[in-house]
Amino acid sequence: MIFGVGLIGGSLARGLRERAGATGEIIGVGRSVKSVERALELGVIDSAVLIDDDNALKQALHDADFVLIAAPVAQTEPLLRRIVPFIDARTIVTDAGSTKSDAVIAARAALGARASQFVPGHPIAGRESSGVDAALPDLYVDKNVVLCPLPENAPESVERVAEMWRATGASVHQMSAEQHDGVFASVSHLPHVLSFALVEQILEAPDAALKFSFAAGGFRDFTRIAASSPEMWRDVCIANRSALLTEIDAYTKVLARFREAIEASDAAALEAAFERSRTARSQWQQGGGLKAADDSAQ
Amino acid sequence: MIFGVGLIGGSLARGLRERAGATGEIIGVGRSVKSVERALELGVIDSAVLIDDDNALKQALHDADFVLIAAPVAQTEPLLRRIVPFIDARTIVTDAGSTKSDAVIAARAALGARASQFVPGHPIAGRESSGVDAALPDLYVDKNVVLCPLPENAPESVERVAEMWRATGASVHQMSAEQHDGVFASVSHLPHVLSFALVEQILEAPDAALKFSFAAGGFRDFTRIAASSPEMWRDVCIANRSALLTEIDAYTKVLARFREAIEASDAAALEAAFERSRTARSQWQQGGGLKAADDSAQ
Repeated sequence: MIFGVGLIGGSLARGLRERAGATGEIIGVGRSVKSVERALELGVIDSAVLIDDDNALKQALHDADFVLIAAPVAQTEPLLRRIVPFIDARTIVTDAGSTKSDAVIAARAALGARASQFVPGHPIAGRESSGVDAALPDLYVDKNVVLCPLPENAPESVERVAEMWRATGASVHQMSAEQHDGVFASVSHLPHVLSFALVEQILEAPDAALKFSFAAGGFRDFTRIAASSPEMWRDVCIANRSALLTEIDAYTKVLARFREAIEASDAAALEAAFERSRTARSQWQQGGGLKAADDSAQ
Repeated sequence: MIFGVGLIGGSLARGLRERAGATGEIIGVGRSVKSVERALELGVIDSAVLIDDDNALKQALHDADFVLIAAPVAQTEPLLRRIVPFIDARTIVTDAGSTKSDAVIAARAALGARASQFVPGHPIAGRESSGVDAALPDLYVDKNVVLCPLPENAPESVERVAEMWRATGASVHQMSAEQHDGVFASVSHLPHVLSFALVEQILEAPDAALKFSFAAGGFRDFTRIAASSPEMWRDVCIANRSALLTEIDAYTKVLARFREAIEASDAAALEAAFERSRTARSQWQQGGGLKAADDSAQ
């Protein structure tokens, strides 16, 4: 069962069905008829349930192997509260949220002792477009999925979630929720905030239209992520507030140091910093980064 | 004649030759044998001159129609000083630097009364890779070129530079050097600084390797421009210092406002700002921006 059949949930469904040949029934749960109708139409799910329909939800959850929560992260706790009266003891629940400490807190609050059935997860994949129409069967191929197991998770439950993701072509890693949130605050959440902030700054300029009209490739790449879902990123910023504020503060300091070097026309300092960045970025691009993941993130 | 046969100068040469069918001799001027040898080998230039060779430079400049300076912007003034003793009164000199107020100052200082022969220009095109091997005949197709004519430029000189760029497929606009520097500080120079700063910040983290290992698509797009030439961007930052500092300060304020909204968990403010950015970014992507250029930047 997939709660939230959009890009992430829809791509998992398509990946399991079209790549891995899974034959089990895939049930999509949505907030409105409209939200699940398109998923049915596209054949991404086999049947649909509305979140408000007690009976249908109870019936669908009975005997479910897996429940995936793939919704903006602020909905994790309400969704878990919604399903807890109905879930079987053998059902494994997981999620796909970009923040994990909040998911752990939500699971403990909503599920109580049944939190042992909840394995927090995060597939590191996305597209600018959202919604089920953007879902792809190969979205997770060669992508990383991070699981942040709870001490009370049964090892078999964690392994079954890992197997599910591997079946879509992903590579699965484990770390603590806290470590996860620090890493992604830095390499994902902060860049999104910085990108949104640049577009906001230009919009506020009196000559915004002229500026946009001469924006070119550098601007295009830098702001691609500013076209991401506002609802999703609003929730991520708030859910990972503490780690994100730490990163914003560290970034502001680096930027202030660059500002000083520019003001002082310190050519050597600027060139050295830019050279360091170029070298690191190029090594990352050439896959040095992924090798480090294999070494250190298990 | 092209001073600096790298990505920008080499692409102009290839565009004029391969797209526009230009038949005139294209002479490349470089700092070292090595720097021009590859351009000769690739057939990008017809002949080469070393910048230190007085006789060759004098002979090459005699009767030249055009001189293009396509080097990091700190070299504009020294290069103009180098050629001023040899240039014909009819030769038109132009440049391809990313900053223009400094080019105007350099031209007045180096050329004196002959500054009337210098038409400042900036093709808005680039690639991550630099050097003559990265040069493409169609680099300028459907790209903007901004000219910032001096009051003393003959209109025919400006028109001939514009014609040259149009022949490569570019669309030519005019604005003042000051306006140019403000616009590009905002939509180009600032994003480069922000992108370099993100990579620098991660490099400084104790868990940098882990962070890089989980960096994905958003990071890739955001930091693509951090692989740009350190020498070029060092010069741009210093040459456009004043406009860039203004943009850094404005950006720092927007970021501080976002930080406040995140700290206060102000979901409504965050979503509204992200929604504004997404809408503006999407409109820009759909070409609204380019239309504005045609309306306002002539």
